[in-house]
Amino acid sequence: MKTGVIGLGAMGAPMALNLHKAGHLCGVWNRTRARAEDLAAQTGVPVAEGPVTLANQADFLITCVSRDSDLKEVVEAFIPGIHPGLVVADTSTVSANTAREVAQLLESKGAGFLDCPVSGGVEGAKNARLAMMVGGKAEVLERVKGVLSALAATIVHMGPTGSGQATKAVNQIMAAGINQAVTEALAFGEAMGLDMDKVIEVVGSGAAANWFLSHRGKTMLAGQFAPGFKIALHHKDLLICHAMATSKGMPLPVTEMTLNQYAELMNKGHGEEDISALFRIKHRG
Amino acid sequence: MKTGVIGLGAMGAPMALNLHKAGHLCGVWNRTRARAEDLAAQTGVPVAEGPVTLANQADFLITCVSRDSDLKEVVEAFIPGIHPGLVVADTSTVSANTAREVAQLLESKGAGFLDCPVSGGVEGAKNARLAMMVGGKAEVLERVKGVLSALAATIVHMGPTGSGQATKAVNQIMAAGINQAVTEALAFGEAMGLDMDKVIEVVGSGAAANWFLSHRGKTMLAGQFAPGFKIALHHKDLLICHAMATSKGMPLPVTEMTLNQYAELMNKGHGEEDISALFRIKHRG
Repeated sequence: MKTGVIGLGAMGAPMALNLHKAGHLCGVWNRTRARAEDLAAQTGVPVAEGPVTLANQADFLITCVSRDSDLKEVVEAFIPGIHPGLVVADTSTVSANTAREVAQLLESKGAGFLDCPVSGGVEGAKNARLAMMVGGKAEVLERVKGVLSALAATIVHMGPTGSGQATKAVNQIMAAGINQAVTEALAFGEAMGLDMDKVIEVVGSGAAANWFLSHRGKTMLAGQFAPGFKIALHHKDLLICHAMATSKGMPLPVTEMTLNQYAELMNKGHGEEDISALFRIKHRG
Repeated sequence: MKTGVIGLGAMGAPMALNLHKAGHLCGVWNRTRARAEDLAAQTGVPVAEGPVTLANQADFLITCVSRDSDLKEVVEAFIPGIHPGLVVADTSTVSANTAREVAQLLESKGAGFLDCPVSGGVEGAKNARLAMMVGGKAEVLERVKGVLSALAATIVHMGPTGSGQATKAVNQIMAAGINQAVTEALAFGEAMGLDMDKVIEVVGSGAAANWFLSHRGKTMLAGQFAPGFKIALHHKDLLICHAMATSKGMPLPVTEMTLNQYAELMNKGHGEEDISALFRIKHRG
């Protein structure tokens, strides 16, 4: 299935590479052209002249951008290239409302749309082991599931448009709490003078085991905060979650604590670091 | 190696069963005698007349009790039975200070001592997949490691006496934060009207994956809070952690929030429920 990728950032670029390995990639486009050229150099797959050309050539378009406004912009940009049968899957993390707006717009032009946010970090994107939470029509998902399997080890159809993004909101709230849990506990262990490599090994083998400890524990303790997943993006996601919860009259105390601490880190110039840089705050105690 | 077990609660009983399967168990004792008789009926291994008799018969004594005071009491009780070469390993969760006191007392009587707290839940105790964090002399651990392997998939020597318990404190702080993360996120997902079985599947396959979600997510959502690990015991452990942190001038905001919420649940009669009953508070939003 001829598949185009728009958005070649930390997640989009390795996803495009995996689509190429599986023989699906027909073209790429990125706002910053250098990134698209890098990918073209690695794969031999051409950089599209623009979003319209790519939409025209492809049977399946995958978008992977950072913000709601980026998604709306890029969708507006490729609309003239839409043709009957085109399916668009957005792997970005945006609000469920934005997913529904974009779906309505694309469906009115004859394209199918899925909200397909992913979890699993850059590691998951690189080794094609992402978890994908999908909202939209089941029959549209069936048409592209084979291609998505080149990216994700787990693909779950959550329900109608927007339910993929609502599930991603659950994921982002949980990730915030786990960040709090791991940073608070490891800062404590360091203050106790423990051998922290051993702490990570043994705590990671019991009932407190979690992905974040296994994948970010050692780098955190070494003061290495290269992303990974940027604080500024998680902050943006948690604002969406907070607004969704507020509309249901629901408090999210751990999420609120995390929002405040991320804001503090962003003010100090750490917004482009990995979310494990929350350790900077815990560690000062 | 003739091994006796003192303390046959939710963790101690399955541990004793696994020692029996491996051919090590020579006797058991429990303050509430009925539990010891249950285990004797299951295994054919005799209930010891008392702690002194058991210490006398055994080369290796494993204790598994709930509180610092229980451990000190039971150690005082078996002291007359100590003989040269006896090793005592305590798998309870107590303070590092209590571990050091008990070690000093036992070593002065000629016995070896290891603090060996465990993680992995009742599931880990039952299927012999515990993670064991060991403090004490390396040569003492070497003598009993073969027996401990019948209980634990991971055995890590953390350092001198007390460092096992300090590591368990890290584990308990992390477990508190993860409980916050999972309960807050799942309550949000439920409020959003999502299919929660699917949420657990897909979120548990990405970067927010954790043991607690996999093992307590479904029961929590079903309002089933049979322990597992009791709120009152985690509360007791977190008080120890909090005191240790305070002595280093270190704040533990997520732990403090959890202590307050556990106290609220205990006041309402939920102290004997599993820690996942924290969901009761999150869910009311």
